[in-house]
Amino acid sequence: MTGIRLDPIGLVESALTDAALAPRQPDEGAPDAWLVIEDSYAAALEGIVPGSELVVLTWLDRADRDTLAVHPRGDTSRPLTGVFATRSPDRPNPIGLHDVHVLAVDGTRVHVRELEALHGTPILDLKPVLTLDR
Amino acid sequence: MTGIRLDPIGLVESALTDAALAPRQPDEGAPDAWLVIEDSYAAALEGIVPGSELVVLTWLDRADRDTLAVHPRGDTSRPLTGVFATRSPDRPNPIGLHDVHVLAVDGTRVHVRELEALHGTPILDLKPVLTLDR
Repeated sequence: MTGIRLDPIGLVESALTDAALAPRQPDEGAPDAWLVIEDSYAAALEGIVPGSELVVLTWLDRADRDTLAVHPRGDTSRPLTGVFATRSPDRPNPIGLHDVHVLAVDGTRVHVRELEALHGTPILDLKPVLTLDR
Repeated sequence: MTGIRLDPIGLVESALTDAALAPRQPDEGAPDAWLVIEDSYAAALEGIVPGSELVVLTWLDRADRDTLAVHPRGDTSRPLTGVFATRSPDRPNPIGLHDVHVLAVDGTRVHVRELEALHGTPILDLKPVLTLDR
């Protein structure tokens, strides 16, 4: 199979700068953050408004792509588990999924609640949380 | 920002071969399908068992990456909407998200219920549906 090329659509702007301090899930204390989308994608943001619920797809650029199995949450008392059965960032194609609530939209900058992604993390895509109408 | 290179971890094997007939969401009649994962990723599948609930990330290789706005679900009576506010496959980085239920695991082949992805679609990643334990 041939490789696939992705170009990020923007970057995360966040107070989270240290991977060691990053929460593993957003309900564990992630800060609000900005999705800074490139101007060339402005038309693709039409329809995203305060109150929108989005899935943010990120590229976890600090991840180790050669890891195939981990102890879940780094807990060595738990059995070694394949990364496809965990949410470990270390995996062959480290794409992050983050459910967020939109607080504000300012041009191509989108302010969101509780995003557990490090400052500078590339953003690949935004999708609405699925409802029957979409 | 620099480009990112992904290598698919496998391919979808499905009776769905015609994009024009593909349902837009799995509750609209998608068939059961196989995730055919490359042997080199066998260790990453450890822990996936019948009954597992997974998110399958696919590369929607028939999508148009230059589309920034669409009429939702192709219905021209609905206003033109930015692709980031829709689930259109046409978008700059066409990554598909599919929630599936695992029916069976046979080596590196994973049989799943109701997958709305065309035969031959590249698979990028598998993740468990998030629970508090993961």
